Amino acid sequence: MKRLTAIAVTAFAAALSTAQAETLPLPQSIISLSTPEGAALLIEAEASTDYFPLSIHFTTQDNPAYCGPASIAMVLNALEIPRPASDMTLGLGMFDQENIFTPAAEAVKPAEAIVNPPYGMTLDEVGGVLAAHDLAVEVVHASESDLDTFRQTAITQLADDEHFILVNYLRSAIEQETGGHISPLGAYDADTDRFLILDVSRYKYPPIWVEAAALFDAMNTVDSDNYDKTRGYVSVRR
Amino acid sequence: MKRLTAIAVTAFAAALSTAQAETLPLPQSIISLSTPEGAALLIEAEASTDYFPLSIHFTTQDNPAYCGPASIAMVLNALEIPRPASDMTLGLGMFDQENIFTPAAEAVKPAEAIVNPPYGMTLDEVGGVLAAHDLAVEVVHASESDLDTFRQTAITQLADDEHFILVNYLRSAIEQETGGHISPLGAYDADTDRFLILDVSRYKYPPIWVEAAALFDAMNTVDSDNYDKTRGYVSVRR
Ligand SMILES: [Ca+2]
Ligand SMILES: [Ca+2]
Ligand SMILES: [Ca+2]
Ligand SMILES: [Ca+2]
Repeated sequence: MKRLTAIAVTAFAAALSTAQAETLPLPQSIISLSTPEGAALLIEAEASTDYFPLSIHFTTQDNPAYCGPASIAMVLNALEIPRPASDMTLGLGMFDQENIFTPAAEAVKPAEAIVNPPYGMTLDEVGGVLAAHDLAVEVVHASESDLDTFRQTAITQLADDEHFILVNYLRSAIEQETGGHISPLGAYDADTDRFLILDVSRYKYPPIWVEAAALFDAMNTVDSDNYDKTRGYVSVRR
Repeated sequence: MKRLTAIAVTAFAAALSTAQAETLPLPQSIISLSTPEGAALLIEAEASTDYFPLSIHFTTQDNPAYCGPASIAMVLNALEIPRPASDMTLGLGMFDQENIFTPAAEAVKPAEAIVNPPYGMTLDEVGGVLAAHDLAVEVVHASESDLDTFRQTAITQLADDEHFILVNYLRSAIEQETGGHISPLGAYDADTDRFLILDVSRYKYPPIWVEAAALFDAMNTVDSDNYDKTRGYVSVRR
């Protein structure tokens, strides 16, 4: 999330060349969910329990630094814990990118700090904000894990109706533009060994199927905003 | 959309009884997408092409009168026409419930009028706003059609990659609370003769599988805000 201006300029230049009718181009190695091939992968996915509760709460990050809050709001809604009510929701409950910041969450990471340098949330801050909502959270830095462990954990938890997984990865490592990013995982396809990322930067990229090894490598990158720890994933349950 | 206060009170009373952790209860006749049965219907749906581009732009209506604008934003994004850019989207494009109101759209229905009595948009206004985006639009009042024609048209258009369909129906006719509502259709399942409605009032109800006949009957109801014409559906393509 650093160098927001540089990211914006790069994205804008790319947008000009695609006439702004679509998201940024994807590398050959990645499959968009919004293609016949990507749709077929979901229909025949070996682990897709989490896709449904997440997809019905799929949302676009409110600003370029808010991938963390958008991902957290989706997961809190999917977990079906009691949701904050408002007049705008007829007195019914829904988490959004503002009301996730309860006093306990603000104590972990103030909303205002996310839109100021160094911008965004770290893996540990995402875990901390989720824990502030009284959830059981496990934060795993990729350097402390390995591909096989991640794959097996993620498959198990994508298939159950208890856990959700959020991944924090470096976009450039999977040939996307450009910096650190956070989004929930929706599904796993065994035939292609790919995970589905429900990318909350919906103006920038569609949900993508990315190879497990490529995703793990993109998580196993150093985050200079997080004491040079590696990125990784957060597992959360009620 | 009339009697917003009465609707709010009813919803609030229902919410109290469900602890606000979930959406309102559904009748037996309706299947939520976010259940194993509902998910299985999507995976084995006979027409689901439109589900994917719509689902990746699924959004919650910004206020209780904005089911029309939310549905229109989803469909404009799914159609992949050039999208308005902003700083908040890194200069990339995305339709939302504010920027759909171009001058041409405002000339059909001003945004401000939607949040004032009689609240919301009529079927003809939804068609008019879409047409103001230079799209080919067909507005069909249910009284001018019949169940078989609607079913066949909707199946064909849900399966192609050109058209999208928005339905305008009376919630109480399918045992939901309460008034007129607008949302896009996502899929059709032949085995159960059900359509999937991607309900933009996401705090209130999940996406639902509703029987074709019940949906048609709910569209074939008089809208006193639209010169007593019946509700119905809008078909739109580039
Ligand atoms: Ca498979
Ligand atoms: Ca799970
Ligand atoms: Ca079927
Ligand atoms: Ca279609």
